[in-house]
Amino acid sequence: MDDSAGLAIAFEEAKTSYNEGGIPIGAALVASDGKLLGRGHNMRVQLGSPIHHGETSALFNSGRLPARAYKGSTMYTTLSPCDMCTGACLLYGISRVVIGENTNFLGGEGYLKQRGVEVVVLDNPDCRELMSQFIREKPELWKEDIGTEERVYSKEERGGDK
Amino acid sequence: MDDSAGLAIAFEEAKTSYNEGGIPIGAALVASDGKLLGRGHNMRVQLGSPIHHGETSALFNSGRLPARAYKGSTMYTTLSPCDMCTGACLLYGISRVVIGENTNFLGGEGYLKQRGVEVVVLDNPDCRELMSQFIREKPELWKEDIGTEERVYSKEERGGDK
Repeated sequence: MDDSAGLAIAFEEAKTSYNEGGIPIGAALVASDGKLLGRGHNMRVQLGSPIHHGETSALFNSGRLPARAYKGSTMYTTLSPCDMCTGACLLYGISRVVIGENTNFLGGEGYLKQRGVEVVVLDNPDCRELMSQFIREKPELWKEDIGTEERVYSKEERGGDK
Repeated sequence: MDDSAGLAIAFEEAKTSYNEGGIPIGAALVASDGKLLGRGHNMRVQLGSPIHHGETSALFNSGRLPARAYKGSTMYTTLSPCDMCTGACLLYGISRVVIGENTNFLGGEGYLKQRGVEVVVLDNPDCRELMSQFIREKPELWKEDIGTEERVYSKEERGGDK
């Protein structure tokens, strides 16, 4: 599957979560042969869970797999991965992380690269707009999800990729 | 609560998991005022979940909390945290990570310190022995849990803290 098709699944998951009243971040894990291993979305609201982010939900829904299943795999995610999801990708040796956007939040991209993971940022307008809309509508829920009580700054406000 | 009391809860969780046929790693999250926020153990076998490690299960069982609840908190864990659990502690701004042992597995301790988290290794014989016993009994399950198909080396075999 190509990167736009992988991201499209992640974005469908994000929209599903938004429509459920949840946090609109979705992900899809695709094996090296193009097979979809799992897809999922943030479940903080739906499950009351602080550990079901988009990427970890995709991993959860992929179930138990041997290490070789993750070899050459790609994690598609609508938003730059937080520290936990960065670590989850590293734990399982996921080879590529393809990110919808990193304007609304910049996570562990640098650390992923440092550890040898290929990182691609597609800067997708649909991902960006859905997330921006959510942050405007529910800023407190968003801050809870990323473990901060500070105001969240966009990439523009941060002055670029910092 | 002092560190030995916190680790004792984590170890109880690890034993519970072992007795359930699961992976014997447990954790407990304790707030700055000493209140137990949550406790849990690895649920790979019990739930078929690749994201419920000891530390993430303790976070899951703590439920949804605002960022301030994690301020000054301590994560007690029977074993050195993997990359995912390291990232989960970073995401929520957990202040201290107290580790039962890092002989059987050495995770993200260096990265935690680099990011300003206090790390304490208690080198507890009970934690060490339970984990050693499990790895001897179920080496394939252990490799699946840490995303590897290589043989797992102990600290002695690695030549110390590497």
